[in-house]
Amino acid sequence: MIPALKDVQAAVKRIAPHVHNTPVLTSSTIDSMLKATVYFKCENFQRGGAFKIRGAVNAILQLSEDERAHGVITHSSGNFAAALALAASALDTKAYIVMPSNAPSVKRDAVAGYGAQIIDCQPTLKSRESTLIAQQKKKGATFIHPSNDMNVILGNATAVMELAKEAEQLDVVIAPVGGGGLLAGTALAVNHLHYYIETIGAEPFGADDAYLSLKTGKIQPSINPKTIADGLKTQLGDQNFPIIQKLVSKIIRVEEKEIIEAMKFIWERMKIVIEPSSAVAVAAMFRNSTEFKNRKVGVILSGGNVDLSNLPF
Amino acid sequence: MIPALKDVQAAVKRIAPHVHNTPVLTSSTIDSMLKATVYFKCENFQRGGAFKIRGAVNAILQLSEDERAHGVITHSSGNFAAALALAASALDTKAYIVMPSNAPSVKRDAVAGYGAQIIDCQPTLKSRESTLIAQQKKKGATFIHPSNDMNVILGNATAVMELAKEAEQLDVVIAPVGGGGLLAGTALAVNHLHYYIETIGAEPFGADDAYLSLKTGKIQPSINPKTIADGLKTQLGDQNFPIIQKLVSKIIRVEEKEIIEAMKFIWERMKIVIEPSSAVAVAAMFRNSTEFKNRKVGVILSGGNVDLSNLPF
Repeated sequence: MIPALKDVQAAVKRIAPHVHNTPVLTSSTIDSMLKATVYFKCENFQRGGAFKIRGAVNAILQLSEDERAHGVITHSSGNFAAALALAASALDTKAYIVMPSNAPSVKRDAVAGYGAQIIDCQPTLKSRESTLIAQQKKKGATFIHPSNDMNVILGNATAVMELAKEAEQLDVVIAPVGGGGLLAGTALAVNHLHYYIETIGAEPFGADDAYLSLKTGKIQPSINPKTIADGLKTQLGDQNFPIIQKLVSKIIRVEEKEIIEAMKFIWERMKIVIEPSSAVAVAAMFRNSTEFKNRKVGVILSGGNVDLSNLPF
Repeated sequence: MIPALKDVQAAVKRIAPHVHNTPVLTSSTIDSMLKATVYFKCENFQRGGAFKIRGAVNAILQLSEDERAHGVITHSSGNFAAALALAASALDTKAYIVMPSNAPSVKRDAVAGYGAQIIDCQPTLKSRESTLIAQQKKKGATFIHPSNDMNVILGNATAVMELAKEAEQLDVVIAPVGGGGLLAGTALAVNHLHYYIETIGAEPFGADDAYLSLKTGKIQPSINPKTIADGLKTQLGDQNFPIIQKLVSKIIRVEEKEIIEAMKFIWERMKIVIEPSSAVAVAAMFRNSTEFKNRKVGVILSGGNVDLSNLPF
């Protein structure tokens, strides 16, 4: 079930012409605070402002010619909507994005700006799913799930592959977990790279369905999640959960206050803009700082899409 | 009067072990907007969060052993205060910083955090100068001016030397101008690199003493400057003005609104934190965009020290 190293390597090669090999940054301030060596993989500098384009490009490139001709469809009001729209545009494929009618106009504009067709639905799970199925049939488009799709997971796995090339021999990698696509991709790449590198997930207490899923051994629904990290409100799927279960050593949960403080700290000290979901991974590292002492730590900064007019500080 | 290329190259070599060779970033969005190729030299990622450490380190390293033993002194409430404190600390030299009693506590804390001794003065030019002279005599410390000092200017010149190594053959370089130390350093390095590269200054309308100085051929005082770019409120000096007069082709002035918009644009699109003074250079490029079409443009992003709790957007 778990893809092989060669599958990850093939994804790296496949998507390379279409995505940025994002910079890896370090901070002497953070290194001396933690007495660790920390490498930040800056997916906030990625095309579309988040890692999501990796999975989107990989999934589209795995379609047959006939499938590509009929386009791709997804439901998302967040980063994956823009990423699939951008990826489809770069690959001359039509994209249909099902978005709730109450989605922020800035997100709709981004999706429309990349040339995708927005299909409105009511802001309910039921309307979203029925609209998607109806449109999928009508257009003959291929549904690409934002996180629970093996090609998306493999695309996401490429970020830590690049990180490992630039960083010294890592001991542990931390990635945020929402739908699980980034964490699963990271874990499977890490596992193939060096079996002794640990992969740790980071999750808000207010949306800790992945933590509970690992604990109970069964996917737990994300019921009424409350967190500033809006990218992490979704729940695990049957494609990524088995990988996470097998290859992720644990999930560290963090408070909202810690997320906001970590976000502000990174902006102030590293002078980079990261979104709350990225800050969750940083906050997890700060919260459990003693366990990272004297270790080489990779942190996936998943994205940098924030509304500057509505900051939590 | 104008230092030779070998003086700039010596400064590059001298300060290299003590400063970051900061990243050069590009943005396909900005390139396609302007139909230009723009290279951003990210001094916001520099030690202390601004280019200022370059001049501070270069000046300290030019002192005799006896002078070093007596320490360095300056007056500044901004980036140079922290930069000199940090440089002195890195070079095992004592630093005395004369600061007005009403300086923001965050700036005082930064200076004190680097181990410098803060000497309070009244928030008047007279008190600042008399306090500096009194303390200078008492401690035997060497005064290092934040911008009107040839060793500081030579230190500042190193940023564009690094940029030129990473960028393609540049046609023009834009740097903000306040006290003139960065613009003079940039212009003299650029002139030695390739005589046909243009150096352009960028200045707020609300603090356009450098523009007026160039126009009148005489240093104009900065009277009651009003701009969000607080690093650019100071006036030119007799060391940097002749260089600027001879080697800078012009100064583009920008409105406050343009500064804030440029700052927000860079944060949103490039996901990096830049301070208003840096945004002045970006705003100048946007304002006169047609003249940069089809050219290779270097922009010095001078720093990234902002109060995140008090943003203009």
